Amino acid sequence: MTISLADVQAAAGRIRSHVRRTPIIEIDLDALTSTPGRAWLKLEQLQYTGSFKPRGAFNRILKAMEEGRLPPAGVIVASGGNAGLGVAYAAAQLGIPARVVLPTSAPRVKVEKLRKLDAEVVQAGQIYEDAYHVAVKEASDTGALFCHAYDQPEICAGQGTLALELLEQTEELDTIIVAVGGGGLLAGVTTAVAGQARVVAVEPEAAPTLNTALATGRPVDVSVTGVASDSLGATRIGDIGYAVAAQADVQSVLVSEDAIREARRMLWDGWRIAVEYGAATAFAGLVSGSYRPGANERLALVLCGANTDPADLAT
Amino acid sequence: MTISLADVQAAAGRIRSHVRRTPIIEIDLDALTSTPGRAWLKLEQLQYTGSFKPRGAFNRILKAMEEGRLPPAGVIVASGGNAGLGVAYAAAQLGIPARVVLPTSAPRVKVEKLRKLDAEVVQAGQIYEDAYHVAVKEASDTGALFCHAYDQPEICAGQGTLALELLEQTEELDTIIVAVGGGGLLAGVTTAVAGQARVVAVEPEAAPTLNTALATGRPVDVSVTGVASDSLGATRIGDIGYAVAAQADVQSVLVSEDAIREARRMLWDGWRIAVEYGAATAFAGLVSGSYRPGANERLALVLCGANTDPADLAT
Ligand SMILES: Cc1ncc(COP(=O)(O)O)c(C=O)c1O
Ligand SMILES: Cc1ncc(COP(=O)(O)O)c(C=O)c1O
Repeated sequence: MTISLADVQAAAGRIRSHVRRTPIIEIDLDALTSTPGRAWLKLEQLQYTGSFKPRGAFNRILKAMEEGRLPPAGVIVASGGNAGLGVAYAAAQLGIPARVVLPTSAPRVKVEKLRKLDAEVVQAGQIYEDAYHVAVKEASDTGALFCHAYDQPEICAGQGTLALELLEQTEELDTIIVAVGGGGLLAGVTTAVAGQARVVAVEPEAAPTLNTALATGRPVDVSVTGVASDSLGATRIGDIGYAVAAQADVQSVLVSEDAIREARRMLWDGWRIAVEYGAATAFAGLVSGSYRPGANERLALVLCGANTDPADLAT
Repeated sequence: MTISLADVQAAAGRIRSHVRRTPIIEIDLDALTSTPGRAWLKLEQLQYTGSFKPRGAFNRILKAMEEGRLPPAGVIVASGGNAGLGVAYAAAQLGIPARVVLPTSAPRVKVEKLRKLDAEVVQAGQIYEDAYHVAVKEASDTGALFCHAYDQPEICAGQGTLALELLEQTEELDTIIVAVGGGGLLAGVTTAVAGQARVVAVEPEAAPTLNTALATGRPVDVSVTGVASDSLGATRIGDIGYAVAAQADVQSVLVSEDAIREARRMLWDGWRIAVEYGAATAFAGLVSGSYRPGANERLALVLCGANTDPADLAT
């Protein structure tokens, strides 16, 4: 299973009036890495709900509506939090019932934010994987449209729309750096920029779903822990993410827990940008030196979420 | 004493390579005010040091350097915090000694951030006004170049450069909404957009320096309290700010403490933008209804600082 550039372009047209075109800022790499150069941050944490997830959610739901396939039971999603927020938000905007299944480990900030949307929220199981099985079962019982957190073509294509914006917003890019959980974002972005830029996939050492899959030659279960596990919490890379990454020769790098913490802190100290750990992960790949750009390589990094308790960013 | 558009343009050229060109985002007013329309937020909280203050600071220091007037003692500033950060940052970048006098009421986040720059930091007096007298006295003793927090032509002209960017970044604007402390930002912005857009000046009811001056017909001392007083903490509007505002017929509106708190919370909940109270004040003017735009009025609001402890933004 894979997706095409045409899918991403169709998604962009479909969701345009429903999502924010998030801005970019240019940053100076001289102070951050040993290689001089410039990079752009895509401020996708400013998206509705505080992450990129409404892009895929709107694409999946709107496409089902176009095709007359939206069931009366509405939509259901299993999520570490952000995918649930994306689906619940899209459903609320479109006047559709939504049900969100979260693991009990989901952070309070995400659960509280979800409750403010109109969705039914259920907590089941300890990790995303558990919540996933509950949601799939419920979907088959109720007939609700199942929205996967990362492994459906419409979801991946929707996430990729942020990379089409990036290409329009920047001048030529060499490399886009993204974080990977289940690989929906990666699949969409990689497909959107194929032939124009390459993609570096950054994962926590504590949650190396893509890295392990690439080393093994197929998606396999890994144990997933660490500060970013409420967003990069899939235990296995999705089939679409894996297929796209393997085919496009995506470079996979890992970062330590400390590098993620430090990167999140740098974004606040240097730019007053508050992001969640999962969204600091791509930046960590760069500033920790896990990924070393060439001289004058033109880089973009996706800041993908900010559903974080900012309390620990205080001095 | 006043400033001209040429001063702002000269400042823009002078400081260009030293400051960030901060991005804008478009927001939808329908959900926020009773009047439909669109508005832009100028994300100036992403500026170096977390506020717009480096713009004026670089302009004042670089101009003195150009004219060979920079004393060996370097620069000195009195500040609620952000002007000190702006001057200390500019001085550090230019390799010049800096001394910053803050009142004891300055918030910890600003004091700590200052200590990380190379400046000497002194705390003197309870409010900005007290620190100001100490710094002026020291400047005359040591010969250091005094950098005013808001009432010098180079400072005001520097702050105005953000409005030149705004005019370039947006299509036609009708109105720019800014917060006022001592009026340096107001003076610069109003001068930069004269003949192209009008300016609405928002102040806390608890710190109405411009509002009282306009009602009285001249700058007068007011008592200054409230959540935003660490940035909007001048006890009297500056002569330049007053002159420019009176001449340009700037509209002055006031907002309650609750409106400021609520506006800061809305920016976090709706956009994951963390700002300090002084920077939520302009937005409060709009969302509280203190300023009511006309139908389809094209508005921009300046988010001017984020030197805040974000702990209370947690759910
Ligand atoms: C903030 C954030 N970043 C990155 C990801 C990873 O996305 P994906 O699962 O599509 O790889 C997620 C997923 O929840 C997320 O919430
Ligand atoms: C964040 C912020 N906003 C607004 C102001 C007000 O600026 P001015 O004193 O030029 O009116 C200040 C001044 O310190 C500030 O720090």
